[in-house]
Amino acid sequence: MKKWLPAVLAILFALSSTSYSATQSKHREKKIYGTSALMVIVERESGKVAIIDSVNHELIGRVEGLGNLRHATMVFSRDARYAYIISRDGVVSKVDLIELKLANQAKVGENSIGIAISRDNKYIMVCNYQPGSVVIVDSDTLKKVKEIPAEFEKADGTKALSRTVGPLDTPDNLMIFGLMEGNGVWVVDMKQEGFPVIKKYWAVGDTPYDQLITPDGRYYLVGLLNSDWMGLLDTWKLDEVRKIDVRERRAMQNPEAEKVPLFHIPHLESWAIASDLAFVPAFGEKRVIVYDMKNNWKFVKSIPIAGTPLFVVVRPGGREVWVDNVGSPGSPEERLVQVIDVEKLEVKKTIDVGKGAIDPQFTPKGEAVYISVREEDRIAVYDSDTGKLIKEFPSQKPSGIFSTDRASKFGL
Amino acid sequence: MKKWLPAVLAILFALSSTSYSATQSKHREKKIYGTSALMVIVERESGKVAIIDSVNHELIGRVEGLGNLRHATMVFSRDARYAYIISRDGVVSKVDLIELKLANQAKVGENSIGIAISRDNKYIMVCNYQPGSVVIVDSDTLKKVKEIPAEFEKADGTKALSRTVGPLDTPDNLMIFGLMEGNGVWVVDMKQEGFPVIKKYWAVGDTPYDQLITPDGRYYLVGLLNSDWMGLLDTWKLDEVRKIDVRERRAMQNPEAEKVPLFHIPHLESWAIASDLAFVPAFGEKRVIVYDMKNNWKFVKSIPIAGTPLFVVVRPGGREVWVDNVGSPGSPEERLVQVIDVEKLEVKKTIDVGKGAIDPQFTPKGEAVYISVREEDRIAVYDSDTGKLIKEFPSQKPSGIFSTDRASKFGL
Repeated sequence: MKKWLPAVLAILFALSSTSYSATQSKHREKKIYGTSALMVIVERESGKVAIIDSVNHELIGRVEGLGNLRHATMVFSRDARYAYIISRDGVVSKVDLIELKLANQAKVGENSIGIAISRDNKYIMVCNYQPGSVVIVDSDTLKKVKEIPAEFEKADGTKALSRTVGPLDTPDNLMIFGLMEGNGVWVVDMKQEGFPVIKKYWAVGDTPYDQLITPDGRYYLVGLLNSDWMGLLDTWKLDEVRKIDVRERRAMQNPEAEKVPLFHIPHLESWAIASDLAFVPAFGEKRVIVYDMKNNWKFVKSIPIAGTPLFVVVRPGGREVWVDNVGSPGSPEERLVQVIDVEKLEVKKTIDVGKGAIDPQFTPKGEAVYISVREEDRIAVYDSDTGKLIKEFPSQKPSGIFSTDRASKFGL
Repeated sequence: MKKWLPAVLAILFALSSTSYSATQSKHREKKIYGTSALMVIVERESGKVAIIDSVNHELIGRVEGLGNLRHATMVFSRDARYAYIISRDGVVSKVDLIELKLANQAKVGENSIGIAISRDNKYIMVCNYQPGSVVIVDSDTLKKVKEIPAEFEKADGTKALSRTVGPLDTPDNLMIFGLMEGNGVWVVDMKQEGFPVIKKYWAVGDTPYDQLITPDGRYYLVGLLNSDWMGLLDTWKLDEVRKIDVRERRAMQNPEAEKVPLFHIPHLESWAIASDLAFVPAFGEKRVIVYDMKNNWKFVKSIPIAGTPLFVVVRPGGREVWVDNVGSPGSPEERLVQVIDVEKLEVKKTIDVGKGAIDPQFTPKGEAVYISVREEDRIAVYDSDTGKLIKEFPSQKPSGIFSTDRASKFGL
């Protein structure tokens, strides 16, 4: 008995102390939190995301190994436990925002651009530049369940594959995406067996490049790189892609406007819709254009700003629109974020955020705003009412910022 | 050595197996989930709430000991970890939706009716019938930080305390509530030191009893028990409580309408606002009235339904409005939930849910709807597209259903 006693004791001690301390350390290190108000921030150069508690403005952690995050975007599972991130090199990463780890990863294309989650939380759709297609994967396993080649007929009658952009989800569980070379818009019904393309609209305009769903969930808008209009589709009727005149956006009616290089193409998803007005970034011009959506998209006003707008974002509650300013590197304007008063339709505040400030993203109720200060390797958090800096986080080349309240919004 | 060995072994075994099995069972029983898509359902008679994962339609658990839950209502912390529930007997319970336990509890009144959380997540406001006041507590400790007596002047010049109703929060971090006997509406600024009442509107109409904030966050609407109008306050301007004519709602313009007893007073918070239309329950009549909000609240149409409406709820995406039907106990109509087509303004589907079916509440993206079947002690879940039953949960006298996506919405 004496012989084996020490060994038994050692094993028992080890067992009891290991399990006890494991439990303890687990409890000690593990912050418990709801997932409805997290900010997930893309750190482009390092292939990571930073996850921040946006109620208390505390860094929770980072998850790495997400591929080339240039222009990376993401959507959230409906319970906001997972972020699905699409990298530029065609990798979908399912990031667990509670366990702070990669839950799954799959290669879905060579060159990808957009991602959406179906209304029922079951499928993820990705738009590919290369090969020209959309891919549908299971949201749990990330296994491919369908690929839809974006085939179109060229002028000479031959067939080719188009780069695709989007996709966006609608309340009827449709997914809508654009065909860049195909000048088309396609609608997939995610409710039906086999995910059929139920509509193919052709000749919508020259080179669809980005799109949005209006906050009410009803209308789909597609921006066209080389046409003087936008396409508008009523997703209830699915009858036609109507042309909305946006010549003003290209200064055709305003030849004296100051032209500047187009440093970035502004993204539609970031357009602000407040009350019945749409706040739209001009192309390569230092202004935000206001259209009246309920009055046949009539031009209302052009609001001058410091640089060329990239993200034009409505503050929750709709009383303000915040806009970043792109400019040549090192220019004074690329430091500025400006606040437009929606009632007066004029800039009411200018905040000097820092070099390369982009992508203001509000907390769900809008009392604070997160901004990526790209060229200063930090994320800045401002009090939205006072415009005062309340917190900073070191962050390597931060870019897109995504709040988990998107989990319950259509088209985001 | 032999003597104490069994005791040591026993202790060590106990230690190791206890901590090990505790760890194990914790891991086994603990489901990890995001909190953005939970349904929290009031079980009135037993003083409990049931917490359900509304993505997979799985019961997570129950928390009990919440007081008298007759007319109980709740709000969520911004991260949706906590539900703050106000019981009829004046107890605020802070329920942890992850740890499934009571995190805190405090008595704030003798007879309470409504609850709201401030935009910054820091404070909870409760409306009391008895004593006539509103109470502000810290959202963490539930310690009282302020009580505002709802004092008004009676016709004879003497002062009295009024029952209060509401409160609702706005994007500007205001809290608004009504004074039932005082015929007033008060506005508290939650941003300012000491929470001052910054506006007191008097003579808004006879007996404010319920209220809402429009989905855009801008307008506050107050229902009046004994006046032929509603009050409308523009929270951007805070100038006046305008009178909105709702005589139609009381059949003053429709004397032939079938009158039935008013079994329940319909609640404003449940009114449906879809596109620019408001779908409003009639008082003691079997119809839903449609007003055009953008056209000075012009009466549009009266839609006949099977019983008297209690909850009138817009489906996410705004294409349908779902309404329950109250009737005399055991009547055929109290079994029915009806679906109104927003484009056609007519009932397009009637679902026989069961005895005492009330309070349809949609999942955040609307593909499923939860309904309390009070008199059959169950919660029914329907596919919103097909109207087919997809799941049931046994539940003792279920009443109000609250989805955690309210955490990022104003006035809910």
